[in-house]
Amino acid sequence: MTDKNANQMWGGRFAAGPDAIMEAINASIGFDQRMAAQDIAGSRAHAAMLAATGIVSDKDAEAMREGLLTILSEIEEGKFVFSTALEDIHMNVEARLKDLIGDPAGRLHTGRSRNDQVATDFKLWTRDQMDAAIEGLQALMRALLEQAEQGADWVMPGFTHLQTAQPVTWGHHMMAYVEMLGRDLSRFRDARARMNESPLGAAALAGTSYPIDRDMTAQALGFDRPAANSLDAVSDRDFALEFLSCASICAMHLSRFAEELVIWSSAQFRFVTLSDRFSTGSSIMPQKKNPDAAELIRAKIGRIFGANVALMTVMKGLPLAYSKDMQEDKEQVFDAADNLMLALAAMTGMVSDMTANRPALEAAAAHGFSTATDLADWLVRVLDMPFREAHHVTGSLVAKAEAKGCDLPDLSLDEMQAVHSAITEDVFTVLGVHNSVASRTSYGGTAPVRVREQVGRWKEALA
Amino acid sequence: MTDKNANQMWGGRFAAGPDAIMEAINASIGFDQRMAAQDIAGSRAHAAMLAATGIVSDKDAEAMREGLLTILSEIEEGKFVFSTALEDIHMNVEARLKDLIGDPAGRLHTGRSRNDQVATDFKLWTRDQMDAAIEGLQALMRALLEQAEQGADWVMPGFTHLQTAQPVTWGHHMMAYVEMLGRDLSRFRDARARMNESPLGAAALAGTSYPIDRDMTAQALGFDRPAANSLDAVSDRDFALEFLSCASICAMHLSRFAEELVIWSSAQFRFVTLSDRFSTGSSIMPQKKNPDAAELIRAKIGRIFGANVALMTVMKGLPLAYSKDMQEDKEQVFDAADNLMLALAAMTGMVSDMTANRPALEAAAAHGFSTATDLADWLVRVLDMPFREAHHVTGSLVAKAEAKGCDLPDLSLDEMQAVHSAITEDVFTVLGVHNSVASRTSYGGTAPVRVREQVGRWKEALA
Amino acid sequence: MTDKNANQMWGGRFAAGPDAIMEAINASIGFDQRMAAQDIAGSRAHAAMLAATGIVSDKDAEAMREGLLTILSEIEEGKFVFSTALEDIHMNVEARLKDLIGDPAGRLHTGRSRNDQVATDFKLWTRDQMDAAIEGLQALMRALLEQAEQGADWVMPGFTHLQTAQPVTWGHHMMAYVEMLGRDLSRFRDARARMNESPLGAAALAGTSYPIDRDMTAQALGFDRPAANSLDAVSDRDFALEFLSCASICAMHLSRFAEELVIWSSAQFRFVTLSDRFSTGSSIMPQKKNPDAAELIRAKIGRIFGANVALMTVMKGLPLAYSKDMQEDKEQVFDAADNLMLALAAMTGMVSDMTANRPALEAAAAHGFSTATDLADWLVRVLDMPFREAHHVTGSLVAKAEAKGCDLPDLSLDEMQAVHSAITEDVFTVLGVHNSVASRTSYGGTAPVRVREQVGRWKEALA
Amino acid sequence: MTDKNANQMWGGRFAAGPDAIMEAINASIGFDQRMAAQDIAGSRAHAAMLAATGIVSDKDAEAMREGLLTILSEIEEGKFVFSTALEDIHMNVEARLKDLIGDPAGRLHTGRSRNDQVATDFKLWTRDQMDAAIEGLQALMRALLEQAEQGADWVMPGFTHLQTAQPVTWGHHMMAYVEMLGRDLSRFRDARARMNESPLGAAALAGTSYPIDRDMTAQALGFDRPAANSLDAVSDRDFALEFLSCASICAMHLSRFAEELVIWSSAQFRFVTLSDRFSTGSSIMPQKKNPDAAELIRAKIGRIFGANVALMTVMKGLPLAYSKDMQEDKEQVFDAADNLMLALAAMTGMVSDMTANRPALEAAAAHGFSTATDLADWLVRVLDMPFREAHHVTGSLVAKAEAKGCDLPDLSLDEMQAVHSAITEDVFTVLGVHNSVASRTSYGGTAPVRVREQVGRWKEALA
Repeated sequence: MTDKNANQMWGGRFAAGPDAIMEAINASIGFDQRMAAQDIAGSRAHAAMLAATGIVSDKDAEAMREGLLTILSEIEEGKFVFSTALEDIHMNVEARLKDLIGDPAGRLHTGRSRNDQVATDFKLWTRDQMDAAIEGLQALMRALLEQAEQGADWVMPGFTHLQTAQPVTWGHHMMAYVEMLGRDLSRFRDARARMNESPLGAAALAGTSYPIDRDMTAQALGFDRPAANSLDAVSDRDFALEFLSCASICAMHLSRFAEELVIWSSAQFRFVTLSDRFSTGSSIMPQKKNPDAAELIRAKIGRIFGANVALMTVMKGLPLAYSKDMQEDKEQVFDAADNLMLALAAMTGMVSDMTANRPALEAAAAHGFSTATDLADWLVRVLDMPFREAHHVTGSLVAKAEAKGCDLPDLSLDEMQAVHSAITEDVFTVLGVHNSVASRTSYGGTAPVRVREQVGRWKEALA
Repeated sequence: MTDKNANQMWGGRFAAGPDAIMEAINASIGFDQRMAAQDIAGSRAHAAMLAATGIVSDKDAEAMREGLLTILSEIEEGKFVFSTALEDIHMNVEARLKDLIGDPAGRLHTGRSRNDQVATDFKLWTRDQMDAAIEGLQALMRALLEQAEQGADWVMPGFTHLQTAQPVTWGHHMMAYVEMLGRDLSRFRDARARMNESPLGAAALAGTSYPIDRDMTAQALGFDRPAANSLDAVSDRDFALEFLSCASICAMHLSRFAEELVIWSSAQFRFVTLSDRFSTGSSIMPQKKNPDAAELIRAKIGRIFGANVALMTVMKGLPLAYSKDMQEDKEQVFDAADNLMLALAAMTGMVSDMTANRPALEAAAAHGFSTATDLADWLVRVLDMPFREAHHVTGSLVAKAEAKGCDLPDLSLDEMQAVHSAITEDVFTVLGVHNSVASRTSYGGTAPVRVREQVGRWKEALA
Repeated sequence: MTDKNANQMWGGRFAAGPDAIMEAINASIGFDQRMAAQDIAGSRAHAAMLAATGIVSDKDAEAMREGLLTILSEIEEGKFVFSTALEDIHMNVEARLKDLIGDPAGRLHTGRSRNDQVATDFKLWTRDQMDAAIEGLQALMRALLEQAEQGADWVMPGFTHLQTAQPVTWGHHMMAYVEMLGRDLSRFRDARARMNESPLGAAALAGTSYPIDRDMTAQALGFDRPAANSLDAVSDRDFALEFLSCASICAMHLSRFAEELVIWSSAQFRFVTLSDRFSTGSSIMPQKKNPDAAELIRAKIGRIFGANVALMTVMKGLPLAYSKDMQEDKEQVFDAADNLMLALAAMTGMVSDMTANRPALEAAAAHGFSTATDLADWLVRVLDMPFREAHHVTGSLVAKAEAKGCDLPDLSLDEMQAVHSAITEDVFTVLGVHNSVASRTSYGGTAPVRVREQVGRWKEALA
Repeated sequence: MTDKNANQMWGGRFAAGPDAIMEAINASIGFDQRMAAQDIAGSRAHAAMLAATGIVSDKDAEAMREGLLTILSEIEEGKFVFSTALEDIHMNVEARLKDLIGDPAGRLHTGRSRNDQVATDFKLWTRDQMDAAIEGLQALMRALLEQAEQGADWVMPGFTHLQTAQPVTWGHHMMAYVEMLGRDLSRFRDARARMNESPLGAAALAGTSYPIDRDMTAQALGFDRPAANSLDAVSDRDFALEFLSCASICAMHLSRFAEELVIWSSAQFRFVTLSDRFSTGSSIMPQKKNPDAAELIRAKIGRIFGANVALMTVMKGLPLAYSKDMQEDKEQVFDAADNLMLALAAMTGMVSDMTANRPALEAAAAHGFSTATDLADWLVRVLDMPFREAHHVTGSLVAKAEAKGCDLPDLSLDEMQAVHSAITEDVFTVLGVHNSVASRTSYGGTAPVRVREQVGRWKEALA
């Protein structure tokens, strides 16, 4: 296979030929070869349809389909020589098909154009990534469910402003991420359903006068239906932008968890121990365990959302139908998809491997009279005390405990009644972090019983 | 209503009190008063539930509910005095309720906190905007459908690279935007369904020990169900980010159409005439009609996507559950929503008012031998000519027409047969822009018959 | 002053008049009234020049200049009635000037247009913000210098990956931010110098045939020179984008420091105590002190960089010279400037008020054998031991200390010599966090002597 | 060179070893090998300094420096085998140096760490790109100056809102871009000066106790001075962000010009003809010439600004000093730099090759009574007519010309005097597009004489 005369495809008027700069800025084969399998699948579906509708002979179609399979093998085996002069994956495959089967290759392009072909390839590629994201999310959710189930009643601090607010359970915290990722899952599913319309047969932009059967190719490629407007079909990149939007929100969720893991791994927190697999150490400082994977995951939101910004900026203000600007779409989606899958996998590994430090979590949960709210609530609920008074009484009890250097449940009933005589033994049922979390049984609350319910619900959903 | 002692809400330990800087950076009442109606609706639902579950007396709940209605009236009538020292809409309403009904006001906050309250208010507000976007999209789609129906067979150039590629129909071009906006519609609907879970009752972050009924408040506020994890419920801003993502893609679509309108309004194109309502003129240059509205719409993608970037950046790496950073969420969504609705309305007005310049469109469509492709296709389809030969013959015919200074259909059959003897009279059925568009009858193609089908399908869908 | 007939400015051809939507999307007076002082300063300079060049009479110019001063007073006193129908600040001022001085008002617009006028006003406004940013940065740097000077020899952990790496000094850490802010300062100064060219007199886009003196107006308004190309002068918004770029990098620096303050304020770190002024508390949980101001500052990068994205997106692909899209420039810069100044002020207040917790810092610095590196370096430097062996010896000594439950300097010389006999008493000069930091005297190092040098250098630079 | 035992560098505690995921997310050698030359230059300077300060022997230093040169040759000749297990370029080079020179290789790392090493390498790489951008900008400016000089008096429409506003000259339009690019040039120069401080010797973060000479290495590497704070030196990525900011604004300028070239190349405008080198054609539609290069350049702003967003997001909220998140910095800058250089080169080629269509430009300039403003100005300036009356008279004359189907200069003096008797023959000196542009001689105006002055000024500046 040779490059010479390759630019004859532009006809004779380009005597000069593209020089190196133009080739560098114009050619896409350097990256769009990643869509080779999609390109060949699309062409094979198209060839079968051309035969079924009588546009080409069965024999020619068969030659095309066989030739395309051969090319796929060559590519998969690394034997295919990609040519920059042939610009893109479509022309590279087409030229090779000509080498292999001769004239019938020329008929493959009947009733389609590069515009609908590239849209089809890129949609198929992106759809695969949506499926991969869905799988990656499910794996991570399962790892979180395991952590949640195991630690459904482990107590830890619930933070607001990174200050201990109220005790919660480890399981409850893990399940918060399951909810977030569940929305990501749902978002990717919606996006996949919305984008699953076939551009193939939209041709350059106006449709075609050949009696093609777009339903047939749509079905063969797993699309739900053909796209209903040929201009839109070739100029639409919503599917790429929606993939990037979904990926960005998902990466944001991962960045939040990664941030927590970095903070929790600090010497000051020691809430979790990450496995050696996902951290790096120091040969001379044995405690030092750098949460490298967590930090890298935290950073991926930048890269993925940067891709979203890039493509949105490219699409801004583009007139219909196809403009060459749109060639900048693929590298952004490729890079974002690669990094999202990597981040999901690394997070899944980290979550599976990590060990919660229960004593540290529980000690931190009790810090700062974190069940003072429970006490105040008890005063209101049980003694029917007005809020303001309940807060005043609670403040006095906290002050007494602080003076004594103990926590609230360590005060005796006598000491409590000295502050307010109506307080009864029952108050101890809400004091202390275990009582506190057990009491929060409202739907969605942190009580172990509620957490286990949610674990069950999600296990079923992911089964 | 007075501000003095307002910061008593922080208790006595803040002797110094917030100074002007802190007030300026901390207070949100300047913007979150826009959620007053949502805040009051949420509180009224909560009060009714507190009574139904026996947490407060029916009498107290009634007083709360009545008092809240009074406050709503005061706000709607502009009589309510908002206080910056009271920081936010929630505290402003709560303080006023205390003025109006006294002690029972204090019980309203039972089983909830500011964290779930603000999440509920903001979700309700954003949900309203999703509904408004859906309505705005439908109005614009209807305006486009009218243009499409009227001009289903008007011929215009179909562009790639802003170069005439093939003739298409005006209706087909309008319908391309209907498809895009149809995806926007579907995207907003999916987002609305996904976000429609009630945070109310998640309390500060851990749920509550009060026997609240979260299903009841969820139902009262039109939510499909309560959110299933209280930590997630107060720290989730996905709904805002997804609104901004959907709005950004929609604004990108509008920017593309706006760009076309600006180009089409130029003296060089003259494809459309915008109405005086949506353009500005010059007192001394009568032809000058600046497409101001189109330009402003084109710019809105910047503002709306900028808001998306802003909130995504804010959310990056935030540990659970609530951090004050999240107070930066509302202004971004408010501004993006206002500008999206304005852009949709202005575009709807512009599309309704605009007049296509049919002669200019048709003349441009014929420019540059735009039906040469049809000729080549005919040679392949009817004469079964190999592609390469068909291109060669077409090139020769174009050269002949160019030399003669005429278009392809103006060549005589004799002149054609001089180039290739097998050409028959039938070739004229595909030459000329009207024949060209009529022939492109593949599904989604530009043929008037196909365009009218799609108009019908969408009219039904929007009925 | 009345709005009726206001749209006569468009001449008679706009019979319909702009309806509410168009007014809403088109009018800028709602925000550009913030540039009233700049607009009047520009007009006064222009009027003086028109008289000096003989284009208008001295008497007319005097009337204009007096009238403009009157309008400025009216605006400053809140008496001026802004009209949306008059669209923008320029038309509002011009119409009011006509009311005040009659016909001569009409001559003010000689040799200029709205395009160069708005560019001038906006540049003057932005220049003021650059000056304000410079002042705000200097104030914050001074607050940091005070902290650095006070704590030049306080020891704290130097983190990488939020893991203790080596001991550093508090002063050194503070000075790292002084360096960052010093670059911000330099960046704003460069931007100010670059943008300080006057657009006034560029007229609509082509310059003017009136014999205006652009140097005179440039000088009167504090510009270094007139802009050299009239097309560029009215279509340039680089100054706004460069302000937003500089502000974004600065806000990023603030977000890093804010993140540290949030982490340092956690119960687990307790490295600093923020003042009550810049935090909020809980009436019943006395230790809880939420670092609200730090969190809000951390979030500002979102808003400010969002504005950068917004304006960059707006400017993408705009043909010359002026397009109405550019009207979206001001609100982004206004909002970013307001929030940058607020963030700088709040950070300055927080830094001035905050108290470092020296014992906690020092204890944390010693954690994890943080001077093991110093020990290894000593073995290499003093005993000329190969690196690999030095690491091995250090590892053994750390293991011994760990087993004994003490830190490295707590091992006796005997214990050390048991591991490697060549170790001498001198080793203790590098062990322990104070010795460690004192030893790092390379230029830019953490040694107190180096830190004090840098404090001195910066104090002089800011004097 | 073999990978086995490569992860011994982490010491024995990582029994498990990093698995494939960790390697994939963690290793940077896949991209940071682009900094090999910088890494080796940095190491060679460091080795020389270590000898000069007596920290290592001259002999060892010489061995290091020679060995490093050998490695550079191996890399340049493509013989070097990069190992992913060795993670990054620094470890790859170090390991190879050990192979080549044995033990002395271990001493090279004295007084530095990977943190300052990577900062040094990346700064050197980025500085090279700043220099390349400056050269690329100058080349493009020279191409524009040539166009401007040639067409200093060619008349074309000056647009606002893509509507003809006033005639301008081709040279003036070209020079507007020279001004924009001149600001880009100045911006890159400022950025280069600001970033030119050496991080080398900052060590891990705290400086070092070795008596290193940071001035010496700074000088050897062309830095102006060593960075003054070691914590800042290793955690600073301002230089990368400032490069991306400058590149983004520059790319925005290119996007505006590219947009104009796309519009100007349309069949409707035909203002320019792009060379075959930078466009693509159709074998059967001879007029079709797709401005591919212009479209691709227009799109580059997306990619480059996306990189800016990505890195800004990564840096948001990172605590000091080094976090692994920062490893995401390089690919963004690499990609943005590559694409900026490519866009500058392609634009330079396109501008050099393009041909302005003078007749089309001039015809368009005259369209729409574009000199009506000149007429009105003449009435004010020469007849001292009040503005309002001048506009009224002009409107009447335009109406008369429109009715007659001619342009303003085609009216006879009699016809003019019929509208207003004071009009004299002199009026024709400002009517017509050539008179109009010649009259706009204010500084920065479009008059050929002014344009030529600016061309001269810039030629000198770029000489």
